[in-house]
Amino acid sequence: MTKLREECGVFGIYSLKTSGIVQDTYYALFALQHRGQESCGIVVNKAGIMRSHRDLGLVNEVFAHKTLYELGQGNIAIGHVRYGTAATGNRRNAQPLTINHIKGSLALAHNGSLTNMASLRKELELAGSIFHTTSDAEVIAYHIIKQRLTSTSIEQGLLKAMAVLKGAYSLVLMSPRKLIGARDPLGIRPLCLGLRDDSYVLASESCALDAVGARFIRDIEPGEVIVIDEHGPSSYTEHCQKGSKALCVFEYIYFARPDSVLDGNSVHLARQQAGALLAKTYPVPADVVIGVPDSGIDAAIGYSKESAIPYGVGLIKNKYIGRTFIQNTQEQRNDAVRIKLNALRATLEGKRVILVDDSIVRGTTSARLVNLLREAGAKELHMRISAPPFLYPCYFGTDIDSQDKLIACKYSVEEIAQILGVDTLGYLRLEDLPNLTPNYTAGFCTACFTGQYPLDITEAKNKSWLEKPIQ
Amino acid sequence: MTKLREECGVFGIYSLKTSGIVQDTYYALFALQHRGQESCGIVVNKAGIMRSHRDLGLVNEVFAHKTLYELGQGNIAIGHVRYGTAATGNRRNAQPLTINHIKGSLALAHNGSLTNMASLRKELELAGSIFHTTSDAEVIAYHIIKQRLTSTSIEQGLLKAMAVLKGAYSLVLMSPRKLIGARDPLGIRPLCLGLRDDSYVLASESCALDAVGARFIRDIEPGEVIVIDEHGPSSYTEHCQKGSKALCVFEYIYFARPDSVLDGNSVHLARQQAGALLAKTYPVPADVVIGVPDSGIDAAIGYSKESAIPYGVGLIKNKYIGRTFIQNTQEQRNDAVRIKLNALRATLEGKRVILVDDSIVRGTTSARLVNLLREAGAKELHMRISAPPFLYPCYFGTDIDSQDKLIACKYSVEEIAQILGVDTLGYLRLEDLPNLTPNYTAGFCTACFTGQYPLDITEAKNKSWLEKPIQ
Amino acid sequence: MTKLREECGVFGIYSLKTSGIVQDTYYALFALQHRGQESCGIVVNKAGIMRSHRDLGLVNEVFAHKTLYELGQGNIAIGHVRYGTAATGNRRNAQPLTINHIKGSLALAHNGSLTNMASLRKELELAGSIFHTTSDAEVIAYHIIKQRLTSTSIEQGLLKAMAVLKGAYSLVLMSPRKLIGARDPLGIRPLCLGLRDDSYVLASESCALDAVGARFIRDIEPGEVIVIDEHGPSSYTEHCQKGSKALCVFEYIYFARPDSVLDGNSVHLARQQAGALLAKTYPVPADVVIGVPDSGIDAAIGYSKESAIPYGVGLIKNKYIGRTFIQNTQEQRNDAVRIKLNALRATLEGKRVILVDDSIVRGTTSARLVNLLREAGAKELHMRISAPPFLYPCYFGTDIDSQDKLIACKYSVEEIAQILGVDTLGYLRLEDLPNLTPNYTAGFCTACFTGQYPLDITEAKNKSWLEKPIQ
Amino acid sequence: MTKLREECGVFGIYSLKTSGIVQDTYYALFALQHRGQESCGIVVNKAGIMRSHRDLGLVNEVFAHKTLYELGQGNIAIGHVRYGTAATGNRRNAQPLTINHIKGSLALAHNGSLTNMASLRKELELAGSIFHTTSDAEVIAYHIIKQRLTSTSIEQGLLKAMAVLKGAYSLVLMSPRKLIGARDPLGIRPLCLGLRDDSYVLASESCALDAVGARFIRDIEPGEVIVIDEHGPSSYTEHCQKGSKALCVFEYIYFARPDSVLDGNSVHLARQQAGALLAKTYPVPADVVIGVPDSGIDAAIGYSKESAIPYGVGLIKNKYIGRTFIQNTQEQRNDAVRIKLNALRATLEGKRVILVDDSIVRGTTSARLVNLLREAGAKELHMRISAPPFLYPCYFGTDIDSQDKLIACKYSVEEIAQILGVDTLGYLRLEDLPNLTPNYTAGFCTACFTGQYPLDITEAKNKSWLEKPIQ
Repeated sequence: MTKLREECGVFGIYSLKTSGIVQDTYYALFALQHRGQESCGIVVNKAGIMRSHRDLGLVNEVFAHKTLYELGQGNIAIGHVRYGTAATGNRRNAQPLTINHIKGSLALAHNGSLTNMASLRKELELAGSIFHTTSDAEVIAYHIIKQRLTSTSIEQGLLKAMAVLKGAYSLVLMSPRKLIGARDPLGIRPLCLGLRDDSYVLASESCALDAVGARFIRDIEPGEVIVIDEHGPSSYTEHCQKGSKALCVFEYIYFARPDSVLDGNSVHLARQQAGALLAKTYPVPADVVIGVPDSGIDAAIGYSKESAIPYGVGLIKNKYIGRTFIQNTQEQRNDAVRIKLNALRATLEGKRVILVDDSIVRGTTSARLVNLLREAGAKELHMRISAPPFLYPCYFGTDIDSQDKLIACKYSVEEIAQILGVDTLGYLRLEDLPNLTPNYTAGFCTACFTGQYPLDITEAKNKSWLEKPIQ
Repeated sequence: MTKLREECGVFGIYSLKTSGIVQDTYYALFALQHRGQESCGIVVNKAGIMRSHRDLGLVNEVFAHKTLYELGQGNIAIGHVRYGTAATGNRRNAQPLTINHIKGSLALAHNGSLTNMASLRKELELAGSIFHTTSDAEVIAYHIIKQRLTSTSIEQGLLKAMAVLKGAYSLVLMSPRKLIGARDPLGIRPLCLGLRDDSYVLASESCALDAVGARFIRDIEPGEVIVIDEHGPSSYTEHCQKGSKALCVFEYIYFARPDSVLDGNSVHLARQQAGALLAKTYPVPADVVIGVPDSGIDAAIGYSKESAIPYGVGLIKNKYIGRTFIQNTQEQRNDAVRIKLNALRATLEGKRVILVDDSIVRGTTSARLVNLLREAGAKELHMRISAPPFLYPCYFGTDIDSQDKLIACKYSVEEIAQILGVDTLGYLRLEDLPNLTPNYTAGFCTACFTGQYPLDITEAKNKSWLEKPIQ
Repeated sequence: MTKLREECGVFGIYSLKTSGIVQDTYYALFALQHRGQESCGIVVNKAGIMRSHRDLGLVNEVFAHKTLYELGQGNIAIGHVRYGTAATGNRRNAQPLTINHIKGSLALAHNGSLTNMASLRKELELAGSIFHTTSDAEVIAYHIIKQRLTSTSIEQGLLKAMAVLKGAYSLVLMSPRKLIGARDPLGIRPLCLGLRDDSYVLASESCALDAVGARFIRDIEPGEVIVIDEHGPSSYTEHCQKGSKALCVFEYIYFARPDSVLDGNSVHLARQQAGALLAKTYPVPADVVIGVPDSGIDAAIGYSKESAIPYGVGLIKNKYIGRTFIQNTQEQRNDAVRIKLNALRATLEGKRVILVDDSIVRGTTSARLVNLLREAGAKELHMRISAPPFLYPCYFGTDIDSQDKLIACKYSVEEIAQILGVDTLGYLRLEDLPNLTPNYTAGFCTACFTGQYPLDITEAKNKSWLEKPIQ
Repeated sequence: MTKLREECGVFGIYSLKTSGIVQDTYYALFALQHRGQESCGIVVNKAGIMRSHRDLGLVNEVFAHKTLYELGQGNIAIGHVRYGTAATGNRRNAQPLTINHIKGSLALAHNGSLTNMASLRKELELAGSIFHTTSDAEVIAYHIIKQRLTSTSIEQGLLKAMAVLKGAYSLVLMSPRKLIGARDPLGIRPLCLGLRDDSYVLASESCALDAVGARFIRDIEPGEVIVIDEHGPSSYTEHCQKGSKALCVFEYIYFARPDSVLDGNSVHLARQQAGALLAKTYPVPADVVIGVPDSGIDAAIGYSKESAIPYGVGLIKNKYIGRTFIQNTQEQRNDAVRIKLNALRATLEGKRVILVDDSIVRGTTSARLVNLLREAGAKELHMRISAPPFLYPCYFGTDIDSQDKLIACKYSVEEIAQILGVDTLGYLRLEDLPNLTPNYTAGFCTACFTGQYPLDITEAKNKSWLEKPIQ
């Protein structure tokens, strides 16, 4: 674990014509791939018949020419990418989930994490329900269908179910005739709406709209349910709480793509701003500002602009290293850092260097990086982190779940600087988080830095009763 | 469709030691592979934690060294092979099914077909249940778990569920601590019990017991539930109907392996007997008796013995042709028969030949075969079929489901002989079916020949309401 | 090593039209697959441009739909299958060999083994030649091209080269405009000619002619070169030695397919005759004659006919076990025999059994087989081998190369019977070899049984100087 | 063809210990992957026995864990990456080439292109040589071995062969006991020497030395042969022409990795300098300087520094798009540019933008890129190219071979600006090429820009006689 991982990315498209939407979804999943590399899937709906393919692997591994062709055509499609690394048997957790129920079929893609998953599931199991997966998505689907029995439409079922779902969720659903999007009442995970000709598009990030040539229309509101059918979109906002909003701030700092705009704010500009704020807080005389590719580049440019210290390329990333890269021994694993990243002596030799990165998780990778830069002749090394230190677990869909491995939980900033071997180290200050974006209105979720959770996490803290007896 | 296809094969093993049972299950699935070539799977249980792997493909395609290794060890395991051909997206129908419920986890492997599947599923859906597959297995699992809520054990839940399940089923179940087998009240599909040292084994056919070195103990009785745990097997037979039994006669004629013994009768001997009965019914002067490999060989030997006409090898089967064999054009598909089977001129030239096969489905393949034999010099060709003509659909787990493609539904025996180009043609007589096995006691299901179904099939006839909206 | 392995199979087709010959070659390689399972390849010639594909693996592994399609069309094609097991890096030894030389291009497929390979290669290397492979085929190609420089045609170059080539070889060559076949002066390996419409076909065995729908015309004579171009075939026989012929007798006993006819004799009948001769030589009262599938079946039928003891099916072969079958431990490897072959109790129990096989190599597999039959209740076991014992290495293209592992080199027949656990054991007598085929004229190579080699093998005996420094 | 392609990268390592050098070579090939993506290979030498693996594909596709393991250990290894795209049958052109000859074995890896390949090959063919490939490497190997016959060592053979080889070549050879490097007399392709503990390393670029943790020692001189054995390196420079040097200038501009140092000059700094020179030549008022990832980034930073216009991130590259990315229709291929690169509105909207790239080949991709930037709101677009226009074919190992597709051969700079849709366009001036690197001494090959070739190319111009009859 050298980087934190987002849980998922979701996508949906509703078109009045029936050609090309599987390919659109395929393109969109490439644009969202950074949100999840464990598994992915596409479901396409042709006149109410849903065809699906999902598997462990990256989009380019899971979808071959033949597979896309066999999915065929349709006028609604949804897609999903999921985080993590491959392990035996969790193929069944790949999404979108597809199920049949008394009123027809349903496909569902989910980004987020429920805090009351355990009690929701127990309730269902006590009534005789069986579960094929250990995912939140199945629990959500069950509750929607349960409510559907006494509702006049799938969206009414969803709205009723949302009254009991607690936690972070951005959902894209597909019924035989409708595409539906929903976002939890605090808007912890992003979701936005776009339009291309006569096709409406829902996506976790606006970069996926760009990938399919769609124009950004607006973000889905916290608590909103949006239903798209042949009459266009209708919105259900009666359940939305006004004013309180808690988009995960780490979406800006690390998870989202820099070319995305979330809740009205450019991710790239937020990162530049983080760099600028670091320059103001921790000024230091230096010759060059460099960023750790790819995630530290934007903040490094911001630091450079604010400080007027030139921006330079100090590390070259090898773009051919993939998941199959072979490292047998520990020694080889150490070597791997130098294959993945090479220090650029021409930029570094004899220089005072400001190194910008977005986070330090365990510290191991950062220490090796510092070593590479020293070997390449860096005279001074001043490390700047465009986020505050992680101190608290996240229960809303990322894997910051274990405090004992986080370096910031164990050491002071000075100690970490010493462990990493840098001359100075500065983290973004907590009080600067609200300043990352210009139109800071209702607020971010900053719980991983502050421990102040936007909703009750008592049940989520003790997930261990769910002992995953099927793997 | 040149051959009929069995639906499935099931296997289970309970051992007091925890090593080797995944490999045993792997071996057993090879022995049962003839019962299903679409998909297969293994679930292994180690101290209540179930690990599984299942996928589309043959056993040797689905289970690589790494996959078997990752399944790990355990003391209970079950396995499944499923019929058919690969098609997009039905991977999720691969078994064993694994689910979680309020009392723990359950794995289930099923061979057969329920006749009241639709109404059982509808009942569940009306209560809010969701379905991931279109398989009987999921409906069965749901009903077991529903009954489990008000039962003291999983086997009690199963027994209650069996009261509502109608049709053909042989089940192997695995709970955290138990291996359970069950057979429908008519015993339409086979299931037997074996023992190897301290390991109990359940299998669709006795050849799978041989494959793992287990000794055959007995067949599971129609209607019986057998539970194996650390105390050995216990049997529940209160639900068994005495006297009425309806093992599918086509298990003897075609589906089962000749080295299996089903309900006390050797499959090989039953086929030899079918050949002998044909020789008695349709004697004809000839020089040689040949069988169509592999399924006509046993009956051909029986015909030869009874008629005293020498047995010979007239057709050589190419054992390297697999599922990936490439035939692009119709012309090439015609050629394919001659690659798969070659006629042996040395046996046939100038000879009067009796050709024994187990069935004629559409007649196309048989006609090409006859043509091959004629080209190789056969002077006379007398075809003998070791089964009566198919005339009625099967609702109990085979794919004899469409009458309009069956040649016997459209033409008389004389017309078929003419279409195939043989001099004479004889099918096994209906009245000879009881004579195939020596200890014919309670009876066979012979519905595909006679139209007399051993149970009500009204609901099964109209399966079309289940429109499989998810593929 | 439980079975001996043939070195190779070759095929060539010359057509006046340009469609379908790649598919024909693909079909033919399936028919010849038993002659080599290590690697295979196809080269097709369209207007002098040769496209090729070859790789390690079975035909169905090496040739996918896309690969066949990419080879395109042409009017001449040749193909090759090669023996053995996969090992790193010997992909380059896959044939047909394709080379460029001063006069154009050449493709070559070879079955056999040169006895003077080492000196021929040394001669070339002393002149500066470089070698990419360790195969005889490359040495042969070099010598042909060397002679081509001073010849008026490729066939003249071949004829001159044949004056120095010693050993066993059946060759199929393709030049930009011609298909050429050649057989060594003793005819140790088979090669025959067929015709289909306006296409001429060369193949190691006649079963490959059947596979492409071609009619058998004649065998290529020992020493003959046959050239096929737009004018049809021309034959060069001036180098043929009259009278002396030495077709490998093991082609009849084991290597060739039973439906092939080699040098005028049916392989199937030769094997039946071997069985009949065994029945005459070693009569014994018994209840049933069974053969070891697949290679012992024909001889078992012959034994049965001669002895009037009924033929039966005593062993069932699992047809799903392929090269990827997983056996981790020695114990599992022992088990593997019982998965591959199951004994049929119905045939064996309480019976006196005659078991016919074609050879005993090390004895390990035979011993396990005997054990299986005993477990299934065989009361007496009389083993009959349709060949004499192997005692001498083969230098002509099979892998009978190590005397110290051959059971017959170490033990007497009585001792072997005891080791295997059979009641009696009888090998085909040396003096019966000439009686296997009706038109026995010029003779067989029987060196592996008799030690009498049909040509000088002094150099071949010491191949070790060729230390294969590139792997 | 949207980018030019380098022909190859070479690597070699000689170690006194025998562990880890296959893994080292594997790492080095990752570092050199940008020089060739068609095929790759590794040969390892253990006590004179060479084991090899090579195939079509990227390093991570060709080398799996098992493959690396099977190569085993050794104390000398060489590796190769080759340019291009996959096509049927050219697997045999994958390098390193491995051959046997009278004195032993030889492995050879080649980067470059001979101008007298055709006459060298013809000379060999007239003496009876046969060729398995159409590569220069085989011709080079033949000539070395031919000279080896009358030489006392492999390096003497190589030196004699170099007297007849014309053109561009950097070679890495491996004999049973030696690792040898050689560079053509003009040094057109790079090659350098490094040291790590007791291991000597040869590589096309210094970034591969970094990848294996080796220290850069020096570049191999033009015309030099360097031999490394147990006594360390010895150098043969008698054939070196003093003073005239012609390293391909495009290595600096595009081919090499920015973190490499070639002939004493940092590639990164050369590119920055190109950007700075563009800023001096074509100043324009603007708000932001952006580079096309990845190849335009360094020059963009140089332009920004010189002009004091801020550097910004204007295009985001999707790092998940690989070779298997599926684009079926032309429309989808157009879309693909927007998936691969997304414009960053936050940087571009309403701005005057300077866009820096390294080359324009056909213009199609550049035009689509300009379109993306306009859509994202760029108000003005000033394109700067860090190389002069391509006007002449390259005969030294790159694929700039067809003038009729090069946009600069057909249109003036003003016309190109109009075609692409940019406000202004400026190419690096020819007279600035010598100023790219500080220690410009003997000169670059700039033939693709100037048409002034550093050696006679008459024969190379007419390669068409070599009609590749084997594919």
